[in-house]
Amino acid sequence: MLVVMDAHATKEQIEAVCSRIESFGLKSHPIPGANRTAIGITGNKGAVDLGTLESLPGVVECIPVSKPYKLVSREIKEEDTVVHVPTPGGGTAVGGTQICVIAGPCAVESLEQALAIAARVKAAGATLFRGGAYKPRTSPYSFQGLGEEGLKILAAVREQFGLGIVTEAVDSESLDLVERYADVIQIGTRNMQNFSLLKRAGRSKKPVLLKRGMSATLDEFLMAAEYIMAEGNYNVILCERGVRTFSDFTRNTLDLSVIPAVKRRSHLPILVDPSHGTGRRHKVLPLSRAAVAVGADGLIVEVHHQPDRALSDGMQSIIPDEFDQLMSEVRQIAAVLKRSLN
Amino acid sequence: MLVVMDAHATKEQIEAVCSRIESFGLKSHPIPGANRTAIGITGNKGAVDLGTLESLPGVVECIPVSKPYKLVSREIKEEDTVVHVPTPGGGTAVGGTQICVIAGPCAVESLEQALAIAARVKAAGATLFRGGAYKPRTSPYSFQGLGEEGLKILAAVREQFGLGIVTEAVDSESLDLVERYADVIQIGTRNMQNFSLLKRAGRSKKPVLLKRGMSATLDEFLMAAEYIMAEGNYNVILCERGVRTFSDFTRNTLDLSVIPAVKRRSHLPILVDPSHGTGRRHKVLPLSRAAVAVGADGLIVEVHHQPDRALSDGMQSIIPDEFDQLMSEVRQIAAVLKRSLN
Amino acid sequence: MLVVMDAHATKEQIEAVCSRIESFGLKSHPIPGANRTAIGITGNKGAVDLGTLESLPGVVECIPVSKPYKLVSREIKEEDTVVHVPTPGGGTAVGGTQICVIAGPCAVESLEQALAIAARVKAAGATLFRGGAYKPRTSPYSFQGLGEEGLKILAAVREQFGLGIVTEAVDSESLDLVERYADVIQIGTRNMQNFSLLKRAGRSKKPVLLKRGMSATLDEFLMAAEYIMAEGNYNVILCERGVRTFSDFTRNTLDLSVIPAVKRRSHLPILVDPSHGTGRRHKVLPLSRAAVAVGADGLIVEVHHQPDRALSDGMQSIIPDEFDQLMSEVRQIAAVLKRSLN
Amino acid sequence: MLVVMDAHATKEQIEAVCSRIESFGLKSHPIPGANRTAIGITGNKGAVDLGTLESLPGVVECIPVSKPYKLVSREIKEEDTVVHVPTPGGGTAVGGTQICVIAGPCAVESLEQALAIAARVKAAGATLFRGGAYKPRTSPYSFQGLGEEGLKILAAVREQFGLGIVTEAVDSESLDLVERYADVIQIGTRNMQNFSLLKRAGRSKKPVLLKRGMSATLDEFLMAAEYIMAEGNYNVILCERGVRTFSDFTRNTLDLSVIPAVKRRSHLPILVDPSHGTGRRHKVLPLSRAAVAVGADGLIVEVHHQPDRALSDGMQSIIPDEFDQLMSEVRQIAAVLKRSLN
Repeated sequence: MLVVMDAHATKEQIEAVCSRIESFGLKSHPIPGANRTAIGITGNKGAVDLGTLESLPGVVECIPVSKPYKLVSREIKEEDTVVHVPTPGGGTAVGGTQICVIAGPCAVESLEQALAIAARVKAAGATLFRGGAYKPRTSPYSFQGLGEEGLKILAAVREQFGLGIVTEAVDSESLDLVERYADVIQIGTRNMQNFSLLKRAGRSKKPVLLKRGMSATLDEFLMAAEYIMAEGNYNVILCERGVRTFSDFTRNTLDLSVIPAVKRRSHLPILVDPSHGTGRRHKVLPLSRAAVAVGADGLIVEVHHQPDRALSDGMQSIIPDEFDQLMSEVRQIAAVLKRSLN
Repeated sequence: MLVVMDAHATKEQIEAVCSRIESFGLKSHPIPGANRTAIGITGNKGAVDLGTLESLPGVVECIPVSKPYKLVSREIKEEDTVVHVPTPGGGTAVGGTQICVIAGPCAVESLEQALAIAARVKAAGATLFRGGAYKPRTSPYSFQGLGEEGLKILAAVREQFGLGIVTEAVDSESLDLVERYADVIQIGTRNMQNFSLLKRAGRSKKPVLLKRGMSATLDEFLMAAEYIMAEGNYNVILCERGVRTFSDFTRNTLDLSVIPAVKRRSHLPILVDPSHGTGRRHKVLPLSRAAVAVGADGLIVEVHHQPDRALSDGMQSIIPDEFDQLMSEVRQIAAVLKRSLN
Repeated sequence: MLVVMDAHATKEQIEAVCSRIESFGLKSHPIPGANRTAIGITGNKGAVDLGTLESLPGVVECIPVSKPYKLVSREIKEEDTVVHVPTPGGGTAVGGTQICVIAGPCAVESLEQALAIAARVKAAGATLFRGGAYKPRTSPYSFQGLGEEGLKILAAVREQFGLGIVTEAVDSESLDLVERYADVIQIGTRNMQNFSLLKRAGRSKKPVLLKRGMSATLDEFLMAAEYIMAEGNYNVILCERGVRTFSDFTRNTLDLSVIPAVKRRSHLPILVDPSHGTGRRHKVLPLSRAAVAVGADGLIVEVHHQPDRALSDGMQSIIPDEFDQLMSEVRQIAAVLKRSLN
Repeated sequence: MLVVMDAHATKEQIEAVCSRIESFGLKSHPIPGANRTAIGITGNKGAVDLGTLESLPGVVECIPVSKPYKLVSREIKEEDTVVHVPTPGGGTAVGGTQICVIAGPCAVESLEQALAIAARVKAAGATLFRGGAYKPRTSPYSFQGLGEEGLKILAAVREQFGLGIVTEAVDSESLDLVERYADVIQIGTRNMQNFSLLKRAGRSKKPVLLKRGMSATLDEFLMAAEYIMAEGNYNVILCERGVRTFSDFTRNTLDLSVIPAVKRRSHLPILVDPSHGTGRRHKVLPLSRAAVAVGADGLIVEVHHQPDRALSDGMQSIIPDEFDQLMSEVRQIAAVLKRSLN
């Protein structure tokens, strides 16, 4: 923390700030400048909320210096984390040199639908299958998912195709069930700061896919991952899925610059969701290419064999033929970065 | 829903869109214009997701027309809702001609702290007492609240001062307890789209204070209230608490224009939280005046007798003397609007 | 500037940063902490761009400390600036204890229109008249203003009613003319960082009303005023008019928290434009009350006697009867703050 | 335009809206729905501002349907525009199958600097050279560019290396000079809605590079291009350079999804500026790859041989070695999209 004093701050005011700092058991370092004095603080382990110094006389501003995260930080662990997802097909890796593609419908609607889509995405090279059994919907009157019945359908997909299953939990009850049926537990955007749910996921043995909140800063995003890791679950996969901005021609603004920023600060792998990230079918392919080009560790993509009949988010689902093309293009881009798809 | 066709859309494309619409059991209304045709749709009760029409050939855009909310809407109920909160002191009303002020610390820290603050805010005219027993914090290493012990302290405040209690529930377990001890259940910003929690609150008999999400549109905010009402709990109090923008001199940007917008569309009462809404102590008074001036039904304000020793959010807490001044100023502004404080 | 080093930065890296700093003629102050070292810098007069230190090995981040503005700063001039606008009616003050209300149509359309509106706003207590002769419009096909003919109409209003004239200049040519006819030169939102225009306005003898850019930070806003003042014109009036956010129910999000923030950092007066700030007629009155309640020095309001016939921005213009009510309400709110309207 | 009526709107109110519409010489199309009536409007050529209908009794909302742009629209011209820039080296194309890379320093600082950088970017395959002679800077005390002296240096680069010159004009005076010395006139972010400058550029014979404003919607961006084209200059090159959001780890948020959105609506070519778009040197390479992968027609990149000595924006400039690597990677990505670099 750095405390910036007013240009007219008196010697007494500066001393008062210093002794307040020392009263917390910390050390103060006044730095007199040409125009004003700034006071550095060292020794804070995070327990003391120093923001209140801002209300002392003569103080202009308090500027936080250290980042608040620990376990997610690359300063703690320099090498990239690779999350291994054990699947019937032999397991898949998220992170490292491989590009992981997760594909499937927004919501599980029926066994027939799930199998039809799974057959196609498996053939195209996806190793993990996505599909929502619990759907957080803006309206209480929209389709909310099939619940445990949906999970059973996903289990059938798993068995038949050897695909690992990624599906969302929305509360601790659904997490208990998701944990039983799925290979990766997804925490959705709207729950990125549902700290009870994060803690519960942190006590699971299954890897967790954590989506960035709609207006989460990078620090908040990484701190949400820290909640999971602080409970002992180190298998966290991050996922950028678009943020909310003034921009009105897409549902969200996909923030691809977060990928190199995460890579610089954290060792965790990060995927991109171009489907929610754009909300429009015709933008999914170009943004998938861009996501891999920017350095993401993979994609999570909505695929539906009949998007105009989909019970949710049909607007952003691509059809299996488009997914084939996506995989082909993404494979070539991955090669440019010396990475490979399955 | 209005479907806008391309200027070069063929007659066949227009007809294909119309028959797709009719295949959903809806009625299509083509409107040929000078440059292009638009197609109106009627008969949709909300069950059909029409966004997928956007992927048909010749379609430029689908524009939603009807608002998705029902029970929260002023079209359903024209007169303002007044939520009655029964308290030991005889009850208080939120909405109507009265301005309701809720005050207290960010977090309950000890019995002494809570009583000291309660004595002052009660004397100044607050009728409801706030204080967090469960604190959603960005960092897992920050103070997370006293839990049930905090609720018991709030119950003591209730008994001693006759103040109604407003406190936050963060999951269904804490809601079970909050429901038992408090008079109003608060759903916080980060949980505005925690739909499991909203449904659980909707099955409670206690009024619910619902805070706007950090980047919630007006529709999303009202739909979150709809989730609660759809379960049978009609005593919902909305609360604006600042939204996330590019602006960097406050913690959030308090969006006071949402007050007249809510009043136009919904019958529900709405409060303003100038403490979280600004994040800075010196902005709380001016924004409190502005909130009442713009037409809010009241305030929820953080007050701490020793803000520089507070365990959370001390930067934005005002001291009891400032709260006295706030009540005095707000009382005069209320009078200009022909409203009154207790 | 504070340079934050990596937790693993070597002694050599820290020394390299320090000698780079010293090579610029500045002084470095290393502060070794528990986890990492931070390096304070003093002696910088603003000429050296230190951001490049961020690319040195071992550096995590460079954090600017000093604010870049000088003449606009309250640290330079503690007392509030009051801008005196000489008008035929004897002059009016912007800032200080008085609330100044500027009113008139969005665009000057005809002499009859201008006189009809001026008669009403004058009667209600406005002291300055607004009306655009040069209109920056999103579309090249929209009405662009009457140009000098509009200025002549404004001069007629000035003469007949004794009202001072506030009107916008969009380039140096129009500024030459506006300077001749008007009492206050307005720089619009889209030109807040048109630095050529700001410098030209800085060389004028007339006061300048500077509107905040659509996504201007507080620092950028004050630096735009600094451009004007650096050329010698100290009579700058700031104006908040809404910023661009994700929020979609108003044209812009009026950011009233900027008022106390400006007051804390700068001595310049600041007005609020509730018409552009909301873009909706029914929000103008409530937000006008809120603006005065929060501490603004006045308002600039669009009034049109026939808003549904207006050539621009009719949606946000109020009618003269509404303006009468606005003035009555605002007068009462001003009294609560011990301020007065004419 | 579609007018949405209240659920309780009376037959008289609906008729009043229709006759108001007809009074403007337009045609109204009432569409009675299950809950409410909507009224379509046809025949509007853009001259009538229909927003004012929103204030009529019984009206809930007015929804614009047609896009306001004409000349920029793909509906007017289906095939992609390729802008030919004649250069001493034989000319270069922007748009089409080629990827165009513009490179050079943020600001022209000296002949030596310009030549040193030009030699390297030319060798790596850039065909156009960028460098600012007029620099719009947030602070009046920052380096503002060398002016005409800078343009002469650029002319020397042109002559020596056969590179075309791209440089910014900030007002009509500088545009007169830029037009004389440069091959492409750049309009910067802060001037995207400086309509006087856009009109002046529209009367030039030289191609114009138009950067997106910091918070410009897609419609506003395209309308700014429309201003230039409406004056007769059809050689407009668009450029995405990051928008302003809440996100704080980059200077701006690069919005790559705008590329497919522009391609869908307009025939104009569009480049990406990864330097301003991220503001951080280490993000320039990954975002350059992503920009080409998403379908941009090229890049404009800041390169400096001594970024830590640069007079402006050194933090975001890459060094020539990094530029070599950028060109190599981008070339391979372009090949995946069946496009080529020089």
